[in-house]
Parts: sequence; C-alpha cells; structure tokens
Amino acid sequence: MKTYGVIMAGGGGTRFWPLSRKSRPKQFLNLSGKDTMVMDTAKRLSMVAAKEDIFVVTSMDHRQMTIDLTKDLLRPDHILGEPAARNTAACIGYAAMEIVKKYEDGVMIILPSDHFIKNEEAFAGVLKTAVATAEETDALVTIGIKPTFPCTGYGYIRNEEIGGKDYRNVKEFVEKPDLETAEEYLSSGEYAWNSGMFVWKASTILKEFKKLLPDIYEYLVKIGDAMATAEESAVIDKLYPEIPKISIDYGIMERADNVLMLEGDFGWNDVGSFDALADVYGTDEHGNVNMANVCSIDSSGNIFYGPKDKLIAALGVENLVIATTEDGIVMVCDKHRAQDIKLFVDRLKEEGKEEYL
Amino acid sequence: MKTYGVIMAGGGGTRFWPLSRKSRPKQFLNLSGKDTMVMDTAKRLSMVAAKEDIFVVTSMDHRQMTIDLTKDLLRPDHILGEPAARNTAACIGYAAMEIVKKYEDGVMIILPSDHFIKNEEAFAGVLKTAVATAEETDALVTIGIKPTFPCTGYGYIRNEEIGGKDYRNVKEFVEKPDLETAEEYLSSGEYAWNSGMFVWKASTILKEFKKLLPDIYEYLVKIGDAMATAEESAVIDKLYPEIPKISIDYGIMERADNVLMLEGDFGWNDVGSFDALADVYGTDEHGNVNMANVCSIDSSGNIFYGPKDKLIAALGVENLVIATTEDGIVMVCDKHRAQDIKLFVDRLKEEGKEEYL
Repeated sequence: MKTYGVIMAGGGGTRFWPLSRKSRPKQFLNLSGKDTMVMDTAKRLSMVAAKEDIFVVTSMDHRQMTIDLTKDLLRPDHILGEPAARNTAACIGYAAMEIVKKYEDGVMIILPSDHFIKNEEAFAGVLKTAVATAEETDALVTIGIKPTFPCTGYGYIRNEEIGGKDYRNVKEFVEKPDLETAEEYLSSGEYAWNSGMFVWKASTILKEFKKLLPDIYEYLVKIGDAMATAEESAVIDKLYPEIPKISIDYGIMERADNVLMLEGDFGWNDVGSFDALADVYGTDEHGNVNMANVCSIDSSGNIFYGPKDKLIAALGVENLVIATTEDGIVMVCDKHRAQDIKLFVDRLKEEGKEEYL
Repeated sequence: MKTYGVIMAGGGGTRFWPLSRKSRPKQFLNLSGKDTMVMDTAKRLSMVAAKEDIFVVTSMDHRQMTIDLTKDLLRPDHILGEPAARNTAACIGYAAMEIVKKYEDGVMIILPSDHFIKNEEAFAGVLKTAVATAEETDALVTIGIKPTFPCTGYGYIRNEEIGGKDYRNVKEFVEKPDLETAEEYLSSGEYAWNSGMFVWKASTILKEFKKLLPDIYEYLVKIGDAMATAEESAVIDKLYPEIPKISIDYGIMERADNVLMLEGDFGWNDVGSFDALADVYGTDEHGNVNMANVCSIDSSGNIFYGPKDKLIAALGVENLVIATTEDGIVMVCDKHRAQDIKLFVDRLKEEGKEEYL
C-alpha cells in the first residue's frame, strides 16, 4: 500500500506576532534560518513518502503562497485549500477523502506543519515503523514523544507496552497538566507527549468518521462525490464552512478503540511560542538566542529575532523577547509572558490597526 | 550695541544613538516632534536677537545640512564650519572674531544647540537682562539655572546676590557633585546649575582670550586677519585643527575675575540622555514616554521613541528605553543605563560596523 503525506498547514496562530501575520502565519515563516517550517516539514516527510505523494492542507487564502513556497518539491494540485478553518477533524477527513477518491487508498502520515525536529533520521525511522504498524494492524497510530521534562504546555498520552511489539497500547489522552501532575507523569514513565502526528489508512480513518463523527462524514461524502467534477470547487466552498469544528483528538482519538502509539525520541518541539526558540536553536554563552544581527552588551537570557540586514542593539536587559520585522514592527516582551503575545493582536484589532495584523 | 546670537552646534554626542548618528548628531534631531533642536534654539534666540544676526558654529561636515535645516530663518553665510572639533573655547573665539571683523563689535548670546526650554518667554526675559548686564558692566555673564532637585548630572555655580541688582556675583564653578553634595548645594540656596549659556561683548571675550588663553588668541588673530580675504578657507582649514582643545569653562570662566550670573528658572534640561525625555515630554498614566507609534500592554516607566509610521509593541516590560530608526536599528536598554549608550558606538566601531554609527 502506498504512503501519502498530509501536512496540516491551516493554522493562523498569533503567538509569533509580529513575525507571523494574517498574511503569513507561523508555518510559512523561516524560523530556522534554513527554510519555511512547511518546507522543512515537507522535506522531512519526503524521507518516508515520495514527494509527489505529499499533500498540504491550508487555508484557501494561503494556497497560492503555499504552492509558490513548495514548488520545488510538491505538486501544486496536492496543495488543498480550505475555504474556512474547521479544525483538524475536517482537515484530515478532507485529505483522507481526496486520497481515497484519487488513489483508492493508502497510508496517510499526518503532520503539523510547524514543529521542530532535531534528529530527522530517528524521526523518519519512527514514521516508517508507524506506517508498517498502520498497514499491519489497521489501527489509528499516533506518535507520542518521550518526555524530557515535566512540561505543562503539552497534552499527554497514557500508554503501556504490548509484549514484543514496537507499538504501545493507548490507555487515555489527558489535557495539559499542572506542574505537580506533569512531574508525576514524568516519573511514572507511563506518559508521552501528544505530538499531533498520526498515521493510518485513509479508509480506516473514514470508517472512524462514519462511526464517531457521522455528521462530518456526511459532509465528507458529499465533498468526495463532487471531487474531480466541474462542481468540486463550488461544493467545497459551500459545504466545507458548514462542517462542525472539532479536533481529531476530541472527535476521534479519545473515543476510538483501536488506537496505538509509537514512542518517538528525536528532539521534538512544537515551537508554541517565542520562548521555545531557546530550546530549538540553542543559546550563546549569555543565554541569548541570536536569530538576528545583534549588538548585545551586558544582556542575558534574551531571544533576539530579526532580519539580518537590520540591527538589534541591547544593553543591560534580561529575559526579553525582541522581535523585529522587515516592515518596521518592533515587539519587546518579557520572555515569561511570551504566551500572551496574542494580546497585541487583540489590541491592534480593537484599535483598527489592521495593517499590523 | 547690536545683539548677536551664536549657537554652538558642533557636538557629535553618542548618548542618543541610534537616533543620533555620525551623519546627524543630536542637535539635528527632531526630538520634540516639532522641529530640530538647532532650529528650536534658533527660534528661541530670535526672540532676543534679529534672525539675520544669529550664527551657528558647527562641524564642516554638517555645515551644509545646517544651512538646509535653518534656511527659512538664518543666513547661510552665518553658518560657520569648523574643520575639526576643538571644544568650546575655540568655537566661541572663532564666532567672536567673526563678529568683530564683520560688524566691529556686539553683544554675543552663546547657546548650546541641544537643550530643552519649557518657558520660552521667561527664557527670553533672562537673556534680555543678560544682554543689558553685559553692555552695562562689560562682564562675562552666564546663566545659572535655579536647581529643582539634587541633580548629580550637572556642574554647579556658587553665587551670591549683589544688593539691588538682577545679576549675581559668581564665587566658583564646581564639578558634577555626588548625591550628598548635590543635596547640600540645593538646600544651601547658594548654587545654580551651570547651563553653558553665556552673554558678553565680542570685544570683551577676545580680551579674556588674550589674557587667559594667549596661545589660542594668536590663532584667532591669524584667522581673523584672513577673514574676508581669498585665503580665509585655506587659513581656517590649516590653523583651526591646531587650536588647543579646551572648554570655555576651564579656559576662561573659572579663571576670569569679571564673571556675573543671572539666575534662570524657565524649565531647562540639557537632554543629556534618553532618560531625560521623561522630564522633557512628560509621561502617560503608566509612566511611559510615547514618542512613537506604540502598542503598550502591562508596561510602565518606559521611553518609546520611533518613527510614527512604524510600530513599537511592548508587553510586560518596565523601565526600558526602546528606540527605533527609519533605517531599521532597534535599541533596547535598561533606562538606568541610558548614560552608557555610547558603549554601542564603541562596540560597533570595534566590529567595523560603520554603517550603524
């Protein structure tokens, strides 16, 4: 059975404002200094799936940009546009239906478009095992990340070994814990971080939609019936925005009875906010992340991010995020409040300053 | 006797970097949002001296810019260029010689180009009294500022009243004090801040040069002899850079025996560093100075300075200076270290990054 890649690139997150903007959400940023996150993801995925078998699902507004950004690797007709953001269940169902209608069936590897992975070889190895597991067992396979510290920012998956198998049995998905609980999870050894990466046959997940999310399934069937017809765009434009908004985790993973987990240990980070950049890129001897042209004096623990042809000069400052953009926005924030950066977006919206969003 | 204005605009200060640059020192900045400091000074001076009688002495490198900036008010031939910076004695001697050679004599009002004055009417009143005093007494008149707090950043002038006179007798000039001493000065009522503003006849100050700084006087005579001849530029270019570097304070004021002081109380500030902007422009209800397009959330005590068509966004930060420029430099500094901003200039010079200086 063929392996297909599906990159979920529909997010419009605001936690990297002002780098991420309405016109260019985080997944289209070059945070690594190498390539955009979506292209980094596509390249990693191409270690496991042929590049012509990789799909990206993104918002219709960003479809053309995605085609342009990925044109050296991916087929433009594999860049699927969502007329509206309807959360991950809709996105995955749409891709599954596309694969079933176009190619009968296949194993889907579904990845968020905006994560960081340090050890790409180890990552590819886990994905290959996941593909084999999905083929062999017909299960819903997810990748759990071996936790390295009591993180309160991720959901967890309680799991147990199955004698003699690479894959593990999933006992439950749990929400982001408080610190005490996270410490218990870590020391118990029974929990993995929920990475939001999934591997399964397209036909299998559609069966689960039919069983657990029948209302969404109906939409998917109607959209599937229109695929490769003259009505395809019109039907998607009309029906897709009506699909109930629910995540694949709530809608299916937590309720399905055939869920397996593979444990991954490859230096994963969901790059959820600016403070994650210290983990991702490392710091200099003063604890500063220097992703900019920086002149730093007596300053430590900061995250500097900006275009290389501009200059960030810092004197006597600690634990700040200082991010600048080509178009002249400067954002300075206490590093410990990096999670609150969306407040800027709310405030600027209130003030009618749309040009900065 | 006619009154002449002389604005000293030769400084190349680095304490407002990155707003002030080699190509545009502080006195050519529009810090007030109204006009450049040099033009604000010229306008204030024109309340007391006719605008066609106002001179500016600046570095030769900035002469053309000064002509352009002041062209609506001042005569271009009254913008004097120094081939090299030789401190205030040379600057004032040069202007005095120019006045004597061109116009025989006159009372000179000598002002730094980069100070802030709140009450311009009161200021003009003091200058008028100073002019009358210089004419009447033939003394060296300086303006002392009535201190409002125990400032450790200014020099002081110890002075005493003279019965029935507006002017006071100067007993001594003293250096910047420590806090305890500054508190004593303030409570004694005997001290005024040294503002660096002087009023005297051109002929009087030249007599003092002859007596107290004879080596400089010789240079001034040679330069004066060349004035209005074909050799003027060549002589100035050759001799001016050889003039000994000394301030008018050290060279003359502290040593002369005919020094008088007028006390001024008109909201004066020498705008010596970024933290002065809070005094000059006032703050919002969170103690922030907002001389920029600002989106500030949970932030207080900061100084924001930047072009209005760009944006400074601040979250959860306190007591920072955040200054941005049109050409994309962002400077973030602990407000209490604003005096150390010149360290950037040193560092960038070391690193060969001349484009940012």
